[in-house]
Amino acid sequence: MSVSATPLALAPGEPAGIGPDLTLALAAAGLDTPLVALADPDMLAVRARLLGLAVRLRPVPPHAPPRVPAPAGELHVHPVPLARAVTPGRPDPANARSLLTALDTAVDGCLDGRYAALVTGPISKAVINDAGIPFTGHTEYLAARCGGQHPVMLLTGGGLRVALATTHLPLHAVSEALDAVTLERVIRVLDGELARRFGILRPRILVLGLNPHAGEGGHLGDEEIRVITPVLERLRGEGLRLEGPVPADTAFNPTRLDACDAVLAMYHDQGLPVLKHASFGQAVNVTLGLPIIRTSVDHGTAFDLAGTGRADAGSLREALACAAQMAANAG
Amino acid sequence: MSVSATPLALAPGEPAGIGPDLTLALAAAGLDTPLVALADPDMLAVRARLLGLAVRLRPVPPHAPPRVPAPAGELHVHPVPLARAVTPGRPDPANARSLLTALDTAVDGCLDGRYAALVTGPISKAVINDAGIPFTGHTEYLAARCGGQHPVMLLTGGGLRVALATTHLPLHAVSEALDAVTLERVIRVLDGELARRFGILRPRILVLGLNPHAGEGGHLGDEEIRVITPVLERLRGEGLRLEGPVPADTAFNPTRLDACDAVLAMYHDQGLPVLKHASFGQAVNVTLGLPIIRTSVDHGTAFDLAGTGRADAGSLREALACAAQMAANAG
Repeated sequence: MSVSATPLALAPGEPAGIGPDLTLALAAAGLDTPLVALADPDMLAVRARLLGLAVRLRPVPPHAPPRVPAPAGELHVHPVPLARAVTPGRPDPANARSLLTALDTAVDGCLDGRYAALVTGPISKAVINDAGIPFTGHTEYLAARCGGQHPVMLLTGGGLRVALATTHLPLHAVSEALDAVTLERVIRVLDGELARRFGILRPRILVLGLNPHAGEGGHLGDEEIRVITPVLERLRGEGLRLEGPVPADTAFNPTRLDACDAVLAMYHDQGLPVLKHASFGQAVNVTLGLPIIRTSVDHGTAFDLAGTGRADAGSLREALACAAQMAANAG
Repeated sequence: MSVSATPLALAPGEPAGIGPDLTLALAAAGLDTPLVALADPDMLAVRARLLGLAVRLRPVPPHAPPRVPAPAGELHVHPVPLARAVTPGRPDPANARSLLTALDTAVDGCLDGRYAALVTGPISKAVINDAGIPFTGHTEYLAARCGGQHPVMLLTGGGLRVALATTHLPLHAVSEALDAVTLERVIRVLDGELARRFGILRPRILVLGLNPHAGEGGHLGDEEIRVITPVLERLRGEGLRLEGPVPADTAFNPTRLDACDAVLAMYHDQGLPVLKHASFGQAVNVTLGLPIIRTSVDHGTAFDLAGTGRADAGSLREALACAAQMAANAG
């Protein structure tokens, strides 16, 4: 893994979930990249004792976070106090505001160059909503905070990169949401960010059809003919390397995958089951199209595992590695 | 592989495609199950020469097909003449009728017990339609021929079994097509056939939600609440072992898969990309709910590969093995 001198900002997420557990587990084992956790040190200390992890928490100066990795058994912390003590597995809406403060602080630090990237642990939308705070999702919140961009969701893992043209919509709403403007914007962001963040110049993107068999010449839906193909043709005319629309069920064969740098799925359940199956719980969620680098775990708060020591830190480890690599690529 | 004394019937499919190539390749290497190909011997002889395969074609008596495997380098053939000579890669609608005759003959033989199962190679719907024959698909044709059943499509491969609640529909039509009657019928067929054809008593079925995150409690669609959950609860009350509805993107983790015998996806592209990725081109398409056993390759005619010797016989080999095993399970 490449080490960036500028530290990563880690927002562990919902304190009653497994985010703190994973953060502490990685700190105990040692990290090879400079990193600052934005969290409540008291909560972390209590959780570390509960988990039997020897992790020394080192508060850092907010405006000059250390540019070297902490040794194994230490964690650099930018203190963001919680309103109440935490019981693992029992989320408390009174602590929701603190999570958003941690995110805001991390984003500000990424924007002003103190942090190289933001890495987020899992949160619970419902808990934040229960606190009376309107909140539709991590990614949407960060996009608004960064000035209203339209982010693109990319998952990596198991040797695959899968981006989504639409994300969290009821299935029946997908067809109408997939208009030419949206698709073109998503492809431009994906193309540009694969170059800028992943160091892939002129990336090859495999674009899936919306319908089974990519519509089979219009017999199984016409969005490929009406929307997808015209957008691809226009962008190919500008030099973008786009293959498709291809049937989703034949896109993921090794020959096809070897010949592309990313797959663009038209919707959530067309692309993510295969990626998560291939990555065995170690997938990373990357948000493209923001002025900052942001990666995230691909799993939820797992309240039933919080404080048990049985949570798998694989996805968080990969999310940190991916963020560090993206930061290194960005120079 | 289990050997059934009653032979399998193999309908190689479109003669200008790779079906004959794959049939000949397997015959040249040798098969460990009795098998009869329903095809034109002249076409097979020409193709074998083109491919440089030494395969002796042995016509068999239609009413008493041999109950032992042919030795390597021989193929038992039930002659079904084509109207015209075949050029690989150049489908001729004049030959379409012969394909359907081969299918009809094979189905009749399965129904009267001469054949243990039907295995089909790839066909082209378009070529059959160009011949002026209404034809919406292999599976639909066989269902009608067998008396109007509602078949269920199951794919196996890569250690997975994935069945589909809906199959070849435009994406925008899926939600409306997924009604309680359809879903209940599909689950009953899947449950019964896993027992009858696969020897899995009281199979455990993992049922996916329709929407991303299985609707997230109604925030991302309500079909889980309105349709899926009530059907599952009713059938659980009868003793069926059904888990779900679960989010498609977390369903395919190893722990979940170890705890189920089949996954039921709500639509084509939710279930098949992961199965085909996991099975590396060796997936088998199984039609459940017919009075006969029927398996098929999971790929198309690949006109560009016909006659080149570069087509991969893996899926056909697996389809034959699967059919033989299902026949053995059926006793």
